[in-house]
Amino acid sequence: MTRYFDEELLELNKKILEMSAKVEAAIGNSIKALRELSREKAEAVIKEDDRIDRMELEIEEKCLNLIALYQPAAADLRFIVMSMKITTDLERIADLAVDISQRVLEIADQPLLKPLIDIPKLATLAQGMVKDAINSFVNKDPELARSVILRDSEADELRNLVQSELINDYMRKDPESAPRAVALLLVARHLERICDHATNISEDVIYMVKAEVVKHHPESLK
Amino acid sequence: MTRYFDEELLELNKKILEMSAKVEAAIGNSIKALRELSREKAEAVIKEDDRIDRMELEIEEKCLNLIALYQPAAADLRFIVMSMKITTDLERIADLAVDISQRVLEIADQPLLKPLIDIPKLATLAQGMVKDAINSFVNKDPELARSVILRDSEADELRNLVQSELINDYMRKDPESAPRAVALLLVARHLERICDHATNISEDVIYMVKAEVVKHHPESLK
Repeated sequence: MTRYFDEELLELNKKILEMSAKVEAAIGNSIKALRELSREKAEAVIKEDDRIDRMELEIEEKCLNLIALYQPAAADLRFIVMSMKITTDLERIADLAVDISQRVLEIADQPLLKPLIDIPKLATLAQGMVKDAINSFVNKDPELARSVILRDSEADELRNLVQSELINDYMRKDPESAPRAVALLLVARHLERICDHATNISEDVIYMVKAEVVKHHPESLK
Repeated sequence: MTRYFDEELLELNKKILEMSAKVEAAIGNSIKALRELSREKAEAVIKEDDRIDRMELEIEEKCLNLIALYQPAAADLRFIVMSMKITTDLERIADLAVDISQRVLEIADQPLLKPLIDIPKLATLAQGMVKDAINSFVNKDPELARSVILRDSEADELRNLVQSELINDYMRKDPESAPRAVALLLVARHLERICDHATNISEDVIYMVKAEVVKHHPESLK
């Protein structure tokens, strides 16, 4: 029984890593769609989201079955329950890649307002945070989880930079830029929320591994 | 054993209802802070969020203990796991009330850009959706859950209304209004995301009660 259970847990890890890879790709593809103002690429991200949604449901069912069949003890139970929570975060991250793609569709028929510098930087940061958050979970690595949480303030700063530039250098100087500026501002916020989800996952990992309640006390990390 | 377990489930329901009441109040108070541009009220919402965070952790621990102690069968297990997921949604809704309060702090030293009409309407809609979503869970009422999901398009419409008014009637006509207009636009988006969480909860309820996969196929509700 135990050997089967361990194999099931490995299988669960594998599915979560697969889902995470798809979600990271969705973030990257939504930003590529933005750079190129490509309707086609934006629509591809939106379409792919169905598959990610199905992966969430599959993992959820697998987790429920594992609990019902094996009645795992405390640590394993916590790991399985966290798998479900983390999968929900991944699904919502994919939704944010869809949100970014929808902003692209809104502005795809006009030239880009400005060269994109900080937004792709924020996207790369977001992808790395998601990847590391998931790896910290699968490998039960609280140090890696901590490093994700510490990167969240960088995401906030980049978001603020983008936002104040768009308001002060574009909206205020050229009112006609407002719709496109709002779209870019929202993209930056979508990306920053992706970073928030990665942070939530990492907090859960630390909570799980160390059974510490750092979740709502990030200051204890410093 | 069973009687104790049933009592524990009632206790769990009670805790979720208590948390929901706090979260609904946080939404209302953040909008009151906005209407009155009251720093004091905005800060009170931000402060109260710590208590809501603690409630989430308590419910999560209770759920894990219930599973470990009673090893509940399929339907009860699903209910307990969903309790944890729903509690996470409630916590994130409270975070959005904090986000609204932060927008208030950003604009509290200037007069309101415009009389608030659609934003309070959207806030009332959001509060009602959260309340009904939680009631649909506690009472295992898929009809009520469906009614919440159907209201989500109303939220999207109100959000779009607010957004296009702010862009076209304010930002474009008076560039100096941009920072305040962006803050109001974000408040509308925070509220609409609260509605999205209520929708997520309702989808989980339907999934739980009917074991239907409507989650990612809302069209099947129509």
